[in-house]
Amino acid sequence: MLIKQIILSLIFFTAIIQEQGPEKVLRSVFDEALTDTTAYSHLRFLCKEAGGRLAGTSASLRAIEYTRKALVDAGADTVWLQKVPVPHWVRGIEKCNVASPVCGESELTISALGLSEGTGPGGLTARVIEVKGINELKDIGMDSIEGRIVFFNRPALNTLINTFGGYGAAVDQRISGASEASRYGAAAVIVRSATQAIHDYPHTGVTRYAGDVRKIPAVAVSTADADMLSRWLEKDPLLDVHLVTTCRNLEDTVSFNVIGEIRGSSKPDEIITVGGHLDSWDITEGAHDDAGGCVQAIEMIRIFRKLGIEPSRTIRAVMFMNEEISLTGGRTYAEEAKAKGEKHYAALESDRGVMSPRGFGFDASGSRLEKLQSLQKYFVPYNIRDFDAGGGGSDIAPLKELGALQIGYIPDSQRYFWYHHSANDTFEKVNIRELQMGSAAIASLVYLIDLLDY
Amino acid sequence: MLIKQIILSLIFFTAIIQEQGPEKVLRSVFDEALTDTTAYSHLRFLCKEAGGRLAGTSASLRAIEYTRKALVDAGADTVWLQKVPVPHWVRGIEKCNVASPVCGESELTISALGLSEGTGPGGLTARVIEVKGINELKDIGMDSIEGRIVFFNRPALNTLINTFGGYGAAVDQRISGASEASRYGAAAVIVRSATQAIHDYPHTGVTRYAGDVRKIPAVAVSTADADMLSRWLEKDPLLDVHLVTTCRNLEDTVSFNVIGEIRGSSKPDEIITVGGHLDSWDITEGAHDDAGGCVQAIEMIRIFRKLGIEPSRTIRAVMFMNEEISLTGGRTYAEEAKAKGEKHYAALESDRGVMSPRGFGFDASGSRLEKLQSLQKYFVPYNIRDFDAGGGGSDIAPLKELGALQIGYIPDSQRYFWYHHSANDTFEKVNIRELQMGSAAIASLVYLIDLLDY
Repeated sequence: MLIKQIILSLIFFTAIIQEQGPEKVLRSVFDEALTDTTAYSHLRFLCKEAGGRLAGTSASLRAIEYTRKALVDAGADTVWLQKVPVPHWVRGIEKCNVASPVCGESELTISALGLSEGTGPGGLTARVIEVKGINELKDIGMDSIEGRIVFFNRPALNTLINTFGGYGAAVDQRISGASEASRYGAAAVIVRSATQAIHDYPHTGVTRYAGDVRKIPAVAVSTADADMLSRWLEKDPLLDVHLVTTCRNLEDTVSFNVIGEIRGSSKPDEIITVGGHLDSWDITEGAHDDAGGCVQAIEMIRIFRKLGIEPSRTIRAVMFMNEEISLTGGRTYAEEAKAKGEKHYAALESDRGVMSPRGFGFDASGSRLEKLQSLQKYFVPYNIRDFDAGGGGSDIAPLKELGALQIGYIPDSQRYFWYHHSANDTFEKVNIRELQMGSAAIASLVYLIDLLDY
Repeated sequence: MLIKQIILSLIFFTAIIQEQGPEKVLRSVFDEALTDTTAYSHLRFLCKEAGGRLAGTSASLRAIEYTRKALVDAGADTVWLQKVPVPHWVRGIEKCNVASPVCGESELTISALGLSEGTGPGGLTARVIEVKGINELKDIGMDSIEGRIVFFNRPALNTLINTFGGYGAAVDQRISGASEASRYGAAAVIVRSATQAIHDYPHTGVTRYAGDVRKIPAVAVSTADADMLSRWLEKDPLLDVHLVTTCRNLEDTVSFNVIGEIRGSSKPDEIITVGGHLDSWDITEGAHDDAGGCVQAIEMIRIFRKLGIEPSRTIRAVMFMNEEISLTGGRTYAEEAKAKGEKHYAALESDRGVMSPRGFGFDASGSRLEKLQSLQKYFVPYNIRDFDAGGGGSDIAPLKELGALQIGYIPDSQRYFWYHHSANDTFEKVNIRELQMGSAAIASLVYLIDLLDY
């Protein structure tokens, strides 16, 4: 029965290619994506009915069960859950008030950083010292920092065209600011949200403490309130901040990657992985980050099935768990692949938002890169023109060791950080067509790299 | 004094080019655009404080005065208003109710079409006949149409990648549906909104009656309600619709184009026009259509001045009036230019929304096009790669006769028709970075085509 299926599939697949050519297959893929609303419905569920899918939460479990079923409905041959160890951090009360005899009183919009320790319900009150970066701590010295709240206020860079670069120029404060300030005896840290947007949403994210430091409370403040706090500090350097966070680190727990595959017709042992991460921060619907990437991977399976495209290799849609905190989903997936001796041909990650597709980035060089870049011609009719060197993603990175070509799906980046890790990342901020165009682009590229032996 | 200024300017301009080269000038242009919020403030005013800037309204006058002052503040050498004759159509009450013994009762979300006649306050009640296009009217015939409301329900095409094409595939129903249905004795028309979006916003727009037909009422219905009406008609073809519109065509009046220029240093008689249209539909803030295009033109002037870029040719920012109804702003501008014997070197229009820049379209061919396309290399660092044949815009089209190269600014088009001509086109739907990137792209291209003699 299996052999018969494979033979039938091979005949059908060959027929599609020979009769239609890749150009017509891509046209069918885009037509299907642009006229179907299944992926958009999936996105709505993940945002509105699961929501706040932080690893270890019940919301994440609703998302796991939903996407498992969605992969079955999409027509995957096999769908399974893969156990993943995950941390279990929970948010509690959080409140931050400024009091100054000079400036008045105000509440700052904050969000505790992931993995951060709380202040306890009583909170703490301290003076604030503003810095533009971790490197300033040394010059300021312990005498001036001890017992204070360090306010990291270096903004994201606006002048970099790739907004991920502009984010990268500021995010060290969020990741390492608390740990480094702790070395100088700081009582807590307040970090300017790592975003180019000036607005009232705090943008959370993970913070990491070195093993040898006391874990001090750490929160992100909205950029609008960071600007206000900075202005107030100019007028009154002695103002007080009262900070309360009751977040807690509970015992590690277990969660799951959700995996669905279409078995390859002629090279079933070679695997192409396409994925996004199913977890999100708890304060957000996580529409752009990264429900969109997940539903695009499921949509790839649905489109292949609907159009009767039978890939020669096995293609897998993977919803990785726990990208946001400690990447155990991606690591577990690669570890099991290695243990089983799986052959990983390529891996594509979609975790840069659901904006219009601009292209793909490839972790390749020389003639291999040139061959991949030659695929651009098929995408020009869809106004997808960027086929550049350099690409991948944090969940698929561990597959590199297994030989998988690393591919990053690259949508337009301009407005991504208006949403990222904040309550502003809602279902309503995704345009259905930009989602559909991305699904079509991803399914098309997977079809072509399977067709092509690069 | 003037000669001295010109000489000084020339020295300064030459200095910039020779010392920095175009690459560094473009970098400065993008840095300036991406770190300044003046254009975004202008956009806010036009959307929130002027708002609904239909030609002939007091809102449009607020916008005229505001942009005049904005051009002065931006540093234009000369700013003036140019008289433009405009129609004066006013909306009134509008209401559309469906009643069916089979399906129940419901109100449809509608918007009267621009220039359409009203039903009068008493409204009209009639049965509905659904068609997918104007060409069906002939086959159906007068006997079946007379006294009915014709419901044009052909959707925009989703499968075209350029959404303007998908819109174009449906918009004839809005423009000519009323006029054609009138020939068959229809009482009124309801037209499915010309958009790829399925939502509750009606999208208005102009309708035109041929000189020899009775002007019948005409409204756009939201796509969500168009789908509902169609389902109800399947169940009950005899259902009644009660339509009330009290819109009126008043006497033509006078409005203004707003024009500001930087006089060219060495070729002041050669003009480069950059514009958008200042009017919008009355039911919308008109952020994407086309407040964005206007503030980008003003921003070009501001950036040139701020950076001390002295163009050799005269560059003009023009806010055209009355694009939406009858394009008299663009026509008046070209007529006066012709009458004065002005030399128009090039004209660029920004009227496709405020999304991330993808590139430019040029109405050129052969070696001229190749030379223009060679400019692409300067834009690759900004991820702007589309330099294609075919471009322009409806307001600058009359300048073609005067020899002006026609250039269209091309932002990403995917989500434009979610906003176009509807109350959904608000300030909040514009991302400041996408606005800034567009301003920088336009200012950069103008700088380069002035530098280059194509």
